[in-house]
Amino acid sequence: MKLLEERILRDKVVLPGGILKVDSFLNHQIDPALMREMAREFYRLFAAEGVTKVLTIEASGIGIAVPTAEEFGVNVLFAKKAKTANLSPEVYTADVYSYTHKTQNKIFVSKNYLNENDRVLIIDDFLANGQALLGLMDLVHAAGATVVGAGIAVEKGFQDGGKLVREKGVRVESLAIVDKMDEDGNLKFRAQ
Amino acid sequence: MKLLEERILRDKVVLPGGILKVDSFLNHQIDPALMREMAREFYRLFAAEGVTKVLTIEASGIGIAVPTAEEFGVNVLFAKKAKTANLSPEVYTADVYSYTHKTQNKIFVSKNYLNENDRVLIIDDFLANGQALLGLMDLVHAAGATVVGAGIAVEKGFQDGGKLVREKGVRVESLAIVDKMDEDGNLKFRAQ
Repeated sequence: MKLLEERILRDKVVLPGGILKVDSFLNHQIDPALMREMAREFYRLFAAEGVTKVLTIEASGIGIAVPTAEEFGVNVLFAKKAKTANLSPEVYTADVYSYTHKTQNKIFVSKNYLNENDRVLIIDDFLANGQALLGLMDLVHAAGATVVGAGIAVEKGFQDGGKLVREKGVRVESLAIVDKMDEDGNLKFRAQ
Repeated sequence: MKLLEERILRDKVVLPGGILKVDSFLNHQIDPALMREMAREFYRLFAAEGVTKVLTIEASGIGIAVPTAEEFGVNVLFAKKAKTANLSPEVYTADVYSYTHKTQNKIFVSKNYLNENDRVLIIDDFLANGQALLGLMDLVHAAGATVVGAGIAVEKGFQDGGKLVREKGVRVESLAIVDKMDEDGNLKFRAQ
C-alpha cells in the first residue's frame, strides 16, 4: 500500500538492532485517517471471505482492528495478555513465546465471543517473528472457528514470521513489507 | 446517551462486589458501530473546544478513542503502562494508584507527541475511582498542555472518581452514568 510505505519512509525512526519505530502514527500515537485507509484496503482484500469477526491482541492492534471491523460491519475481539497462569475455564488460551523477554506468555479470549461458526480475520500492527499471530490462530482453532486470513500493517520481511504463517496455508496480507533495513535508516520494501 | 444506556441494560452482566461487565461490546469484544455513535456524541459535546489531540490509556480506551479522534480529525495518543520503573528521559510519567491491586503504577507517553500548544480531550471507557483519569491529566499538565475535558463511556456514579475530577474544574461528559446497581442486576442511570 503506497500510502503506508510513504508514511513509513517519512516518519520512521530506525534504531540499532533492527528496531523500526513507527510510533508517531501506528503504535503509540495513532493517525485515525491512515487507519481508515488501511481498514478500507483490508476490506477490499478480504471482502469475499464472509468475515464474521475481527480478532486482534492488546494493545496496539486495537487501533487498526476497530476501523477494519467497522468496514466489515462485524465486531472486534481483542485477546488479552494474561497476568496470572490461573485462568478461568470460560476462556480459550494460547501460548506466545516472547523472543525479547525469552518467556512463554499466555493470551486469552472469552469463550462467549468466539465459536465454531466464526470466520475470523486476524488484524495486527506488526508481524516480525510471528509468535503473536500464531497464538491468535491457536485461539481461533481452540474455538473450532476458521481463520480466513491475517491483515498486517507492517511486516518485517527479514524476520521469519510471515514465512512461518504462510507455510501453514494461511493467507497473510501485509500492507507494507520491509525486506531490508540498515542502521542509516534506509529501507527496502518488497514489491507487491 | 440513550443508545448506550439501552445497550448496557440489554447486554451487561453484574457480578458480586459491584462489578459491571460490559465486555460483550466495550472492553473485550468491541462493537465498532456503537463506538461510532459514541464518537459522534463526543464530537457534538466538545466540538467548540479546539481539540488538537485525543489522549487515552491502553488497552480498552483505544477502541473508543480512535473513532473519536477520527471525528475530530486529530491524532490519538495512548498512554502506556510501564513495566519497569526505569523510564527514559524522553517520556512524561504519572502515577496511578490501583485500588484492585493496592499498588502504585506508572504510566507514560513520549514527549514527542504532547506539547504546550495541545488542547487535549481525554477519552476512556470507564470512570470509577478516577485514578487513571487523574494520571492522564497529570501527563497533560507535565507537557504544559491543556485538558479541555474528559469523555467517558460508562461512569460508575456510586464511586467517587467523577466527583473528584469535576471538583478540579474539569468538564467530564459520561455517556452513561450508573448511579445504583444491585446484585440482581438492576441498574439506575442518572438523568442527564
